[in-house]
Amino acid sequence: MKDYLASRQQMVDVALEVYLPEPKVKPETIHKAMRYSVFAGGKRLRPILCIAAAECCGGKSKDAMPLACAVECIHTYSLIHDDLPCMDNDDFRRGMPTSHKVYGEGIAVLAGDALLTIAFELASNTAGWPRYPIRSVVNELAVTAGSRQLIAGQVADLENEGKKVSLAKLQFIHECKTAALLRTSVRLGAMSANATPRQLSNISGFGHNLGLAFQVIDDILDVTQTTEKLGKSAGKDLAAEKATYPSVVGLERSRKIAQSLTEKAHAALKPFGRKAERLHGLADHLLAREY
Amino acid sequence: MKDYLASRQQMVDVALEVYLPEPKVKPETIHKAMRYSVFAGGKRLRPILCIAAAECCGGKSKDAMPLACAVECIHTYSLIHDDLPCMDNDDFRRGMPTSHKVYGEGIAVLAGDALLTIAFELASNTAGWPRYPIRSVVNELAVTAGSRQLIAGQVADLENEGKKVSLAKLQFIHECKTAALLRTSVRLGAMSANATPRQLSNISGFGHNLGLAFQVIDDILDVTQTTEKLGKSAGKDLAAEKATYPSVVGLERSRKIAQSLTEKAHAALKPFGRKAERLHGLADHLLAREY
Repeated sequence: MKDYLASRQQMVDVALEVYLPEPKVKPETIHKAMRYSVFAGGKRLRPILCIAAAECCGGKSKDAMPLACAVECIHTYSLIHDDLPCMDNDDFRRGMPTSHKVYGEGIAVLAGDALLTIAFELASNTAGWPRYPIRSVVNELAVTAGSRQLIAGQVADLENEGKKVSLAKLQFIHECKTAALLRTSVRLGAMSANATPRQLSNISGFGHNLGLAFQVIDDILDVTQTTEKLGKSAGKDLAAEKATYPSVVGLERSRKIAQSLTEKAHAALKPFGRKAERLHGLADHLLAREY
Repeated sequence: MKDYLASRQQMVDVALEVYLPEPKVKPETIHKAMRYSVFAGGKRLRPILCIAAAECCGGKSKDAMPLACAVECIHTYSLIHDDLPCMDNDDFRRGMPTSHKVYGEGIAVLAGDALLTIAFELASNTAGWPRYPIRSVVNELAVTAGSRQLIAGQVADLENEGKKVSLAKLQFIHECKTAALLRTSVRLGAMSANATPRQLSNISGFGHNLGLAFQVIDDILDVTQTTEKLGKSAGKDLAAEKATYPSVVGLERSRKIAQSLTEKAHAALKPFGRKAERLHGLADHLLAREY
């Protein structure tokens, strides 16, 4: 699995290098800022999931690449904007100063805008596939990134800080802020392989449950890291009074939910048989953290 | 002309009302914020130009409408982000408090993001046209809104405040921040009429010169309003030390340039004959201000 991850990550990095405007293109600042955040040590989980889903459906990484990079650009834009002082106000991400600390808030807002925009440019640069014309691809990307999904997640997250939320509300937040883009990453990969409707539906189920499990486990780790592993950086969600699974349903039930979601993610891949080996492996890699 | 403007403006308003998520869709805040800025008294110049260009090329306003509204959403997003404290820091626009004054900076950033995103959703909801598949339409929209055009204009604007700029640099800024989206507005209208390549090229020339003339005249009015018409609000560009035509080439030469660009805009429509009547009228409406 490690070799697969490393090779696909390198492929994605090379493609992003080609797709993003060179830093010398004017105005230089914006192109430097776009690249700074895109090449700030991301693990490329979403593009790798996109590529692995394409391969699982009989497609090639090459055909999935523009969409894989589009998804990564949307992910990076959302991080830049979420880190702004008027949002989560984070000065560091993955040990590096965030965009607004390096380039100032104005350029950080614009770099996020530019990465969101280039995602659609990348999607529209592909030729489309018999079952999935570019219309469908762009539509899926726009709906996922839009005010009812990705942005809705950030809004709900902001609005519910310090409030008691119901489990239903928490599920809505997690679906929007994490699961939607993960599900769309694998769906776009499947589309680039011209997947059958049944394949696409199975891949969707995988992406949805993987995304939810991923976020529940993140919530759990935020708590267990503070309370059990002293010396590590304190729980950020806890400090920000964010709604999390442990705070809403307790640690034990959160673990059971994470296990159940993980099982559902793997089960959704059953119809693919051995072709889904990489996706199973990726799910293990993402979810089999100690929680 | 007034009747035409009023009727098309109403059509655009009705369409935007339908296309934008209802304010009760959750999370309500973001959908209220999106609507607040979209319905804050904009004159709908870009969508009306889009529709008039479609009509000029033998198309129907109905077919141009999703693209006309997409362009308006991109224009509105750019205003919300440009008004932020970290950019131009404007508390009012058209006499109304700006988005971040009403909803806070975080929601204002997200409302801009959501309007940029929905523009691509609208474009991808159309069926495309024989000469212009949705791919081309989305690509044109993304390139125009991206880091080499619309965003480049805002970056260059920010970076050159208080600096002496060359005429070439100023032209680059004006092309990016104003002319690009105006040109694309009329181009998308022409595309929605399945315009011939020659028609599209003539419409492009019109949009380009119209956009440049529009911005030069805006620059001139900002100066003449302060220096000649005392009592009016002081020149904002002057106060912000923005690069403008009068500050770079003087008032007299600016007027000559504006006249020359206006003539070029009208001349580009010559091949359309009487079919371009509305576009000539719109150009007069936009450019025949006293400057």
